[in-house]
Amino acid sequence: MVAPAHPSGDMKLLAISGSLRAASHNSALLRAMARLAPAGASVELCRSLGDLPLFNPDIETSDPPPVAALRAQIIGADALLIASPEYAHGITGVMKNALDWMVGCEAFVFKPVALLNASPRAVHAQASLREIVTMMSAQIVEQASVTVPILGSGLSEEQIAADPEISAALRAALAALCAAVTAGRAAGL
Amino acid sequence: MVAPAHPSGDMKLLAISGSLRAASHNSALLRAMARLAPAGASVELCRSLGDLPLFNPDIETSDPPPVAALRAQIIGADALLIASPEYAHGITGVMKNALDWMVGCEAFVFKPVALLNASPRAVHAQASLREIVTMMSAQIVEQASVTVPILGSGLSEEQIAADPEISAALRAALAALCAAVTAGRAAGL
Repeated sequence: MVAPAHPSGDMKLLAISGSLRAASHNSALLRAMARLAPAGASVELCRSLGDLPLFNPDIETSDPPPVAALRAQIIGADALLIASPEYAHGITGVMKNALDWMVGCEAFVFKPVALLNASPRAVHAQASLREIVTMMSAQIVEQASVTVPILGSGLSEEQIAADPEISAALRAALAALCAAVTAGRAAGL
Repeated sequence: MVAPAHPSGDMKLLAISGSLRAASHNSALLRAMARLAPAGASVELCRSLGDLPLFNPDIETSDPPPVAALRAQIIGADALLIASPEYAHGITGVMKNALDWMVGCEAFVFKPVALLNASPRAVHAQASLREIVTMMSAQIVEQASVTVPILGSGLSEEQIAADPEISAALRAALAALCAAVTAGRAAGL
């Protein structure tokens, strides 16, 4: 197992959105969470999913630079925040393509993960994401995996972070994720 | 609705593999089916999934050339044969990315589809594919959707087509798909 970049002290969380759309609600949700990060933790936004080639096992050993960069980001993070829109009752191809690249290198193994959901109706994508991430041996942190109904709300990142009810749910999710990281460190993971 | 390229006479089936791997079992399965196509029907292998950009709604209206080419292939086909490997309990990102591009243009609407499965263990991917393709309003042809246990068999395309049991199952699947196309034509679809 590769040790996290920050084995003690500050906590580094990596946020991964399954949408490449500039006005993505899922990306806005993750940016809002970056604003709400508790003291001692920081949320970095992953911006490389759109740079990845389509997964092909035949070129996996060549380790394309965007794949190596994503792997390093994930391995260097103490925990992940993942949010994917639902397209046609599935997670996005963009998100699944990134996950496909990460299966072989085991970057997800034992990694605490919060699965965020921007829409209560996105039940198929959320269930698929849960199945896939579990298969990749990540540790889904249930109390950090929350659904917040922002799809179609028109709320901006600032408004999400300022909304009393939503921000409280997101702060609680972040606290739960950080607690899981702390528990993992105490257990020597 | 766009009329199929061949409203009568010859039947044009398009085979789409979810793997970019040269030695893919799913691609071999589809190539074997091309060899087994009944008289009056031909199976074309779709080779453009690896050329597609990652789906981004922000560039959808620009209609990237590989997307336009795939859409034309699908609209021009009377029916589709789809086979995707299972990666980490999901369909491949490559396949989902292609499907994501096809949602908005409705190329799948009313299209007869056979879902082939090269592994009896790939239950999650097959269930996801079924859910997604149904959501895209395609018509899954149940009798044409068969599972054949070739994963790990080492069987080549030629050996698949020559195997008595497997080739019989594939011929029956092709016959069922062609029958669905004929029924659709008779119903004016």
